[in-house]
Amino acid sequence: MGKQAIGVVGLAVMGRNLALNIESRGHAVSVYNRSREKTDELIAEYPDRKLVPAFTLEEFVESLEKPRRILLMVKAGEPTDATIASLKPLLDKGDILIDGGNTHFTDTIRRNQELAKAGLHFIGTGVSGGEEGALKGPSIMPGGQRDAYDLVAPILTEIAAKAPDGEPCVAYMGPDGAGHFVKMVHNGIEYGDMQLIAESYAVLKQVVGLSNEELGKVYTEWNQGELDSYLIEITSKIFSKKDEETGKDLVDVILDRAAQKGTGKWTSQNALDLGAPLPLITEAVFARVLSSLKDQRVAASKVLEGPAAKPLGAVRDAFIESVRRALYFSKVISYAQGFAQLRAASEEYKWDLDYGTIAKIFRAGCIIRARFLQKITDAYTKDKAIANLLLDPYFRDIAKNYQSALREVVIAAINAGVPVPAFASAVAYFDAYRSERLPANLVQAQRDFFGAHTFERIDKPGSFHANWS
Amino acid sequence: MGKQAIGVVGLAVMGRNLALNIESRGHAVSVYNRSREKTDELIAEYPDRKLVPAFTLEEFVESLEKPRRILLMVKAGEPTDATIASLKPLLDKGDILIDGGNTHFTDTIRRNQELAKAGLHFIGTGVSGGEEGALKGPSIMPGGQRDAYDLVAPILTEIAAKAPDGEPCVAYMGPDGAGHFVKMVHNGIEYGDMQLIAESYAVLKQVVGLSNEELGKVYTEWNQGELDSYLIEITSKIFSKKDEETGKDLVDVILDRAAQKGTGKWTSQNALDLGAPLPLITEAVFARVLSSLKDQRVAASKVLEGPAAKPLGAVRDAFIESVRRALYFSKVISYAQGFAQLRAASEEYKWDLDYGTIAKIFRAGCIIRARFLQKITDAYTKDKAIANLLLDPYFRDIAKNYQSALREVVIAAINAGVPVPAFASAVAYFDAYRSERLPANLVQAQRDFFGAHTFERIDKPGSFHANWS
Repeated sequence: MGKQAIGVVGLAVMGRNLALNIESRGHAVSVYNRSREKTDELIAEYPDRKLVPAFTLEEFVESLEKPRRILLMVKAGEPTDATIASLKPLLDKGDILIDGGNTHFTDTIRRNQELAKAGLHFIGTGVSGGEEGALKGPSIMPGGQRDAYDLVAPILTEIAAKAPDGEPCVAYMGPDGAGHFVKMVHNGIEYGDMQLIAESYAVLKQVVGLSNEELGKVYTEWNQGELDSYLIEITSKIFSKKDEETGKDLVDVILDRAAQKGTGKWTSQNALDLGAPLPLITEAVFARVLSSLKDQRVAASKVLEGPAAKPLGAVRDAFIESVRRALYFSKVISYAQGFAQLRAASEEYKWDLDYGTIAKIFRAGCIIRARFLQKITDAYTKDKAIANLLLDPYFRDIAKNYQSALREVVIAAINAGVPVPAFASAVAYFDAYRSERLPANLVQAQRDFFGAHTFERIDKPGSFHANWS
Repeated sequence: MGKQAIGVVGLAVMGRNLALNIESRGHAVSVYNRSREKTDELIAEYPDRKLVPAFTLEEFVESLEKPRRILLMVKAGEPTDATIASLKPLLDKGDILIDGGNTHFTDTIRRNQELAKAGLHFIGTGVSGGEEGALKGPSIMPGGQRDAYDLVAPILTEIAAKAPDGEPCVAYMGPDGAGHFVKMVHNGIEYGDMQLIAESYAVLKQVVGLSNEELGKVYTEWNQGELDSYLIEITSKIFSKKDEETGKDLVDVILDRAAQKGTGKWTSQNALDLGAPLPLITEAVFARVLSSLKDQRVAASKVLEGPAAKPLGAVRDAFIESVRRALYFSKVISYAQGFAQLRAASEEYKWDLDYGTIAKIFRAGCIIRARFLQKITDAYTKDKAIANLLLDPYFRDIAKNYQSALREVVIAAINAGVPVPAFASAVAYFDAYRSERLPANLVQAQRDFFGAHTFERIDKPGSFHANWS
């Protein structure tokens, strides 16, 4: 029996589906799982596929062509370290470990450096698209040694999703942690997208009074235009799904307590570290947290009153279009913040990220896939050095034409007592970003007053301190 | 010569002023600085004070009564670790190190545990009030071993600020990192307060059109009522300060680029870790970051247009009162978030924080000192277990009576294109917190649709997964 070009360690759903994806492109794949049950199950379920089971790491490593390509799909954190530690003595110089888990990029930087000392290559790669993406074609964001990437690129390119123009959704992101970083920001953007859609739903339901059936139609229609995206598509489908038990609309049976796995939080914490303003995504993260305090909210709803609801009246259809525009413009603002964070990271960690390519590989396979990503690629193609996407002519036009709708929707929501933290944050960011002058001069005056922290002047460089008292 | 009851290591402005404060209460104080110049300067400047210089750590340690009380006022981070490492071999069991620096509470937890193994006590204490507070009476937030605190409590009580009712602004916060944690949240709250005042300034200036002289009068008047606080007081004074060079109002000469030292960022990052919603303070942190991107903002201001300004007209005075109410209610919301974070931390780190006492020791000495803190103490006195300050009858009434003003001001700002991220975030938090039902059910439906992450139901416990496609 010959040796395999690649092996997968960790056969939970993502690892297993990636193995099947690779196999479906004509490669035999070595597979290993710490507990043998998962391996047996996989082989039993797919007896005709070229999956080569191994039941010890030694056997697994032995079964691979050199340089070995090993895709790790184990739990992020300690389990990944433990797996690497077990594999390391079995490997030879030049072998390539690929971590496709949900790893914090700082861990990837550390592992890349540690393994490099032993002559081993380490690629940390984001894999987006969930179970189905893993099986049929995910968006893949690899970072690490460039020459190691080149050795795995053919397989990654085969298994990646294909954009509408046929281009595979994989590209080399940059050294060490760049791939996992891009995946983290992808997930933060996903939090923002989902919160914005949730707010549009709240406004359409609570301010306009749409039924689930009407909501389904609205999102279906929106999915035909600028908002065309996977998340809008599934949203439109969600509203027509019935609960099998009660026969009610399933969306109304689902508890309004959103969970999270932490990558949105990471994105916000990193933005704070980098000094990259990321208020919209951060509001989205906090909105999930606040939703989880269901018991407190139920208690508070009984004692904290809001404004009386005012019916919308005849402007209903025009207002629905305003909500669509508010959603699209807020989405633009959220991506402008996320891509500005990528820029800040690229400078801080010396990654030389290619923002246009990043938008490109998001176009298929991943959760945030959307028609509008092409506009981001276009913006960076025109001007690679653009400081903020809002300055690009296309997005500038969106800002010009849609900002009144966004203001209108936020105002209507505030008047109705419907919380729209992400929409409201979008307006504030837009108005702050386009402010030549912000009231931060007062903040600096206060800081100098109470703490002698000094201030800068508008008329000459330097640090100054005033005798305030 | 007898031995001293306390010594200070690190004679930069905070250390030096604390030494002078302690000495002014009748204690001789040993003083040491790594470079001898600062020590010489201090002694030369205050030849008649009972400051006992030491020029080696050995000499310094030798000069202290046992158990030794050593106040470390060195730079946070590595320098503090280095100083502790140098001192450690010179100390005896039962000696007490007190870190009064601007230390991250996780470092304090670590140091407390490490030193405890050697039989040494370690107190991490927040010290707020800037240079003047250090000299005349700061607010002091100590955490660490309770019995060690009792040995330093008499001196800390003497040097602390006194609240209007005469109570000293110092109290035992809790074990290990509790003191530095409370100081961190204090600083986060300070970021929120300053941003809210800055937004009120922007609205009064840009929407109402007040001059600096009028602004000074407005804040002076506000300082007589519910908003009575140190930050409002200094704000009122800032507007009448002239620039000595140009003769212009100094506030207009100061560059609108706010700096920060990182404690606001820590507060937000920790809130994200704890899962405690802290959107207002986080918006304040990002607002400072965004202000610092001055060049980008100037460029953006030339291409991104906002709405045309609409004059306020006859409602001017009523609107100014609305801004005051918006500011007070937003402040209440910010503190509600900050104190909810303290509660989450107390549970997570097992500190048993006393929230009423914390509000009490903020009443004097520190930057956020304000009349309204008494209301927080009152709320926790009435109900120590209250989940959120907004549920307390006094704050509930503020919410009831002032929310329309806050909505009005945010709407006016949005219509005028004036960024009010913290005000807007306050409205969104209030409306979300009092929402029995949020649109997070849609978020859970989406997560289950694309990632099989499961959802909860409103009608029975458990995790459920639907077959969406």
